[in-house]
Amino acid sequence: MASLPPRCLSFFVLFLFALLINPAISLRTSVIKLPGSDGSADTFCSSWRLAVETNNAGTWNVIPSMCVDSFAEYLNGDQYGSDYDVIADYALAFAKTVQISGDGKDVWIFDIDETLLTNIDYYRAHGYGSEAFESNSFNEWVVQGTAPAFDASLRLYNALKKLGFTIILLTGRDEDQRSCTETNLRDAGYSDWERLLLRGPEDQGKSATKYKSEQRSKLIEKGFKIHGNTGDQWSDLLGFAVADRSFKVPNPMYYIP
Amino acid sequence: MASLPPRCLSFFVLFLFALLINPAISLRTSVIKLPGSDGSADTFCSSWRLAVETNNAGTWNVIPSMCVDSFAEYLNGDQYGSDYDVIADYALAFAKTVQISGDGKDVWIFDIDETLLTNIDYYRAHGYGSEAFESNSFNEWVVQGTAPAFDASLRLYNALKKLGFTIILLTGRDEDQRSCTETNLRDAGYSDWERLLLRGPEDQGKSATKYKSEQRSKLIEKGFKIHGNTGDQWSDLLGFAVADRSFKVPNPMYYIP
Repeated sequence: MASLPPRCLSFFVLFLFALLINPAISLRTSVIKLPGSDGSADTFCSSWRLAVETNNAGTWNVIPSMCVDSFAEYLNGDQYGSDYDVIADYALAFAKTVQISGDGKDVWIFDIDETLLTNIDYYRAHGYGSEAFESNSFNEWVVQGTAPAFDASLRLYNALKKLGFTIILLTGRDEDQRSCTETNLRDAGYSDWERLLLRGPEDQGKSATKYKSEQRSKLIEKGFKIHGNTGDQWSDLLGFAVADRSFKVPNPMYYIP
Repeated sequence: MASLPPRCLSFFVLFLFALLINPAISLRTSVIKLPGSDGSADTFCSSWRLAVETNNAGTWNVIPSMCVDSFAEYLNGDQYGSDYDVIADYALAFAKTVQISGDGKDVWIFDIDETLLTNIDYYRAHGYGSEAFESNSFNEWVVQGTAPAFDASLRLYNALKKLGFTIILLTGRDEDQRSCTETNLRDAGYSDWERLLLRGPEDQGKSATKYKSEQRSKLIEKGFKIHGNTGDQWSDLLGFAVADRSFKVPNPMYYIP
């Protein structure tokens, strides 16, 4: 630093000051516009969350660091559960219109993480998605098998069983996590799924959209009719062999392509 | 009333009282769950809006009447414009990645109502979507041609033109509204669209999804490449011959299948 001319040093100090006072400078998702002088962080973060949930944002890595506080408020408050509740109600209303054949071929697919089970305890300890995803620590969390159910998802799951749907679980978790996943699901209150489909060795490296579409396609080939599909990622729902109706539950914390 | 036994009269008075105090009783969208005793109307209405924007709600007619106040606050406050702004930023970020060939075939499609032009002045006078749609009064409003632009949409529109995109407007408005629509668009600041596609006699009775998919399909047959598509309805964006990227701007006021 001693070799910097005084003018450079002034600019450097100004830059450090700007870093301190301007939350937008630490914004890590580069394509989005920084909030203007008239826009509050909360307003911007709410818009960003909507852009993510509607798939307008496309690929993204971490949440804007300026949004950590407002997302923490959302995820720990009533709104998050209410969002699942209203979606479960729409899913169930649709499910009731489906003619169940009775041959066990009428399927509803559920994703697991952030759909049936909440990993909020993990993400609370990792900046609510503001830290880059770190698979080692997440896998340690998964193996513990202590993720609770979303109330609305458990309610929907049980109501669909009662209506006669065959439940198939389709997750991006690996085959070697089958046992801890099954135990976690049962402990959280889920039971009687027909199949639990996890990524095998041949699925490594595939995008979730491709892997899940292929799995759905195989189910259709075996005569299953996929009426409904619930997931927190658009990659759970889009691609090919899609369900008659797809239901996107919220996830402002991470993105899986 | 004089002929009612006193017990019936008591129940009738109790019923009237329940109507007065319980906003959920006037809920007109029957498939959705009423907010529980622990859920505020604002929380429920925010969840309902998310369900609509993510296409989880499916077909719906009018907004829940209990949500009029919270939607009025949203639509008249900063959040609504901010939501458009962030989406426009994502759309523009994508647009900048498109290789423009220079042959005029690189297309961006815009819907008009609630996408380029805002009809908020009309809907403010009609309960923000809590009244059933009434085509006569809406057509009178359209003919006036005084709908303003969304700031973010005008910014995106002009930036896309500058990048070299061919702009095509695809609207559910009828062919006999061409002149007033063109005037309104120009007065609002839009210019230099390549085509304005409106519903002709052969398109009457078609769903918007079918009509718009057919129009996009014809464009593709003519050699256009549809890179982007911006609309406030999922029926602007889904179906067949879809764009490489679709951008859903918000509309919690009405649903077009």
